[in-house]
Amino acid sequence: MKIGIVGGTGDIGEGMALRLAPLYNVLVGSREKEKAEASCECSIETLRKSGRECTLAGVSNQKAIDDSDIVILAIPFKHLIPTMATLHDFEDKTVISPINPMEKREFFEFVPPPEGSAALMVKRLLPESARICSAFNTIAANKWRALDEELVYSVPVCGDDMGAKQQVMEIVNRISKLQAFDAGPLRVSSMVESLTPLLLNIARYNRMRDVGIQFR
Amino acid sequence: MKIGIVGGTGDIGEGMALRLAPLYNVLVGSREKEKAEASCECSIETLRKSGRECTLAGVSNQKAIDDSDIVILAIPFKHLIPTMATLHDFEDKTVISPINPMEKREFFEFVPPPEGSAALMVKRLLPESARICSAFNTIAANKWRALDEELVYSVPVCGDDMGAKQQVMEIVNRISKLQAFDAGPLRVSSMVESLTPLLLNIARYNRMRDVGIQFR
Repeated sequence: MKIGIVGGTGDIGEGMALRLAPLYNVLVGSREKEKAEASCECSIETLRKSGRECTLAGVSNQKAIDDSDIVILAIPFKHLIPTMATLHDFEDKTVISPINPMEKREFFEFVPPPEGSAALMVKRLLPESARICSAFNTIAANKWRALDEELVYSVPVCGDDMGAKQQVMEIVNRISKLQAFDAGPLRVSSMVESLTPLLLNIARYNRMRDVGIQFR
Repeated sequence: MKIGIVGGTGDIGEGMALRLAPLYNVLVGSREKEKAEASCECSIETLRKSGRECTLAGVSNQKAIDDSDIVILAIPFKHLIPTMATLHDFEDKTVISPINPMEKREFFEFVPPPEGSAALMVKRLLPESARICSAFNTIAANKWRALDEELVYSVPVCGDDMGAKQQVMEIVNRISKLQAFDAGPLRVSSMVESLTPLLLNIARYNRMRDVGIQFR
């Protein structure tokens, strides 16, 4: 199974590539193919040093979509609309949104689009046959990258297509000690996306770093 | 320190009384004083059987406010406005809202009032000198009551008055193994209140019961 990461050279995307590349055939996408290639060389080197084999290639964002079964949109909310306007051919793909619409004002605020959540906005922007799931919303970039740390977190997954949701939950469950939980239909994604600004506030007001969650 | 529980004979309120009575002087309030007295007799008996001493008295909701330093509003969101309309003299009290505005439709949805959260609505309904905090939003009624189970959960606490927030966090930290986290100002309460319908959805779609959270 091939996983393409749109925005794969960003903070979150690069960390995801490091965790996914030893498990799957991963295509790291970027607006500039050269940037993606450089990022992949660096990641392959990091993984080799830690004794991990991987399949990782740097490509354009569009090629990361074209050649993958599953596409992760590892882009900040503010870049969502402009980025999606440059991309196409999402038909029949499983698309994962880890995107959280939030802003840092007096504190971190959840600022959803009119659709109610970033995932629902993604659904509106994509063709009917694309199967959108939200997942990975609350895993901090630093945690993705810290390969010597286990990720002992819960990951709520939302989606309207049960097959795609199962597929995404299986991916989640293969990464470190992440545990996937079915959080229901895509409309629940607003409650999941608002968790991230809450965790950032918790971190800020309690002088913690990279706070995550566990359901129990 | 005296803690008054408005709605202290409901599911959540009765469970809170059981956990708080061995630690504080607790006044269980109800619309009907007799109901509160009966509930307290039952709780005192339960606590005695488990070898716990306690100070617990059943009173009217208004007396639970009048005679307490800290008031917990253990009422469902749908009863918030009618209940508050019958109560007064909240001046200078620390008031805790564990209230979650939500509805069970196709799934559990977060349905906040125009103020943005139940806690912000409580603030609007009370005098300026009342110091509102949100806390305990995600602890299920069954868990409050299960005295032989430790409560190993995180509790985000929101509030605009630092003194009141500290006071509430100290109460949280004395109960079982609950751990309080400062989640920031009262306006963050919407993100905390939307956690509860998310946890109910997680429970429902993963066939779990009484799901709680830990920050880590």
